Amino acid sequence: MKLHGYWRSSAAYRVRIALAIKGIDYQQVPVHLVKDGGQQHSAQYKALNPAELVPCLEDKDLALGQSLAILEYLEETQGGPKLLPAEPGLRAQVRAFCQDIACDIHPLNNLRVLQYLKGEMALSDDKKDAWYRHWLATGFAALEVKLAKTAGHYCFGDTLTLADCCLVPQVYNARRFEVDLGPYPTLVAVVARLEALDAFISAAPEQQPDANG
Amino acid sequence: MKLHGYWRSSAAYRVRIALAIKGIDYQQVPVHLVKDGGQQHSAQYKALNPAELVPCLEDKDLALGQSLAILEYLEETQGGPKLLPAEPGLRAQVRAFCQDIACDIHPLNNLRVLQYLKGEMALSDDKKDAWYRHWLATGFAALEVKLAKTAGHYCFGDTLTLADCCLVPQVYNARRFEVDLGPYPTLVAVVARLEALDAFISAAPEQQPDANG
Repeated sequence: MKLHGYWRSSAAYRVRIALAIKGIDYQQVPVHLVKDGGQQHSAQYKALNPAELVPCLEDKDLALGQSLAILEYLEETQGGPKLLPAEPGLRAQVRAFCQDIACDIHPLNNLRVLQYLKGEMALSDDKKDAWYRHWLATGFAALEVKLAKTAGHYCFGDTLTLADCCLVPQVYNARRFEVDLGPYPTLVAVVARLEALDAFISAAPEQQPDANG
Repeated sequence: MKLHGYWRSSAAYRVRIALAIKGIDYQQVPVHLVKDGGQQHSAQYKALNPAELVPCLEDKDLALGQSLAILEYLEETQGGPKLLPAEPGLRAQVRAFCQDIACDIHPLNNLRVLQYLKGEMALSDDKKDAWYRHWLATGFAALEVKLAKTAGHYCFGDTLTLADCCLVPQVYNARRFEVDLGPYPTLVAVVARLEALDAFISAAPEQQPDANG
């Protein structure tokens, strides 16, 4: 398997965590999101992933974009620990938690959107930062309420799930933008426990071959 | 089952289509997204769905937000036609297609975001419309490339999938904003075939009890 990604992309980071937890061997192909006007826009990459976003997983003939679709694909086709609970209601709650991040926080705050706000929309840096913090705070407030009910050692009890794979990268991202995480004590405590695990350490942005490139 | 939604919410519309295809009986609970400062922000609704967004599905003790999580839950727990293919690679592609819409188009263009751009970010109506059209066009261009390879009668061959449940509401939304759909002929042809089906007709916004309310 090949994972096309970028060290600091939180969507690629989600997938790296799951691959590490499941103990899957794979090759990393760095796609620099800024250099050359964004290598995700190259004809070669576009042929793999028409959405021109990372990550993209190649597995034999399959080229698959969208981090959550990749996580489900790994869950359905690979061995190693299962990251979705068996019980349908709980399974659904884990998926909804992932989507709270992957649909309602991250897409509003990723690189292409921040670039567009500053460029075409001509917003000041202050306004762009306010935008980032607003959607992060809105999303994290809801996640904190959820976690107060579901968290044990991790997001859902004491077993790792896809929710954990999505939460840690979003917190990494929030710290880059110097967001105050004080209002989210449960969330912060869960993340501290997750960040101590080998799979999360090895998947961290700074540990990747293209880090700081 | 109770579906908390809003007639014009394209996320709720996705779920209504799947419920109709699967022939599931349910009760609709309208949540008016504008009246009373947005009924999704009421204490009562917030207790069900801390994200303060629609839809939310109630099934016995479960209160589940996020339309894609709801679609997977219905797929896993209910009878009727399956909307995810059995083969893992194809299944993954259908999920990625849904996420292209539910992660990378719709969250950038939904009501709360457009309100925030106009209010707190003080953008003009022209700029707000340009924002809407930009993300719609970016997303639809990628979907058109995908559909040219996968479409038959519907998004993926001749069998209905979750991709169809996500595509039609996004096109409905695009038409409301008077986006030119000329550049997406495959997409438009697929949608025309879908809109002729009973399940899609009965799920359409104008057919809902709270329509035009």
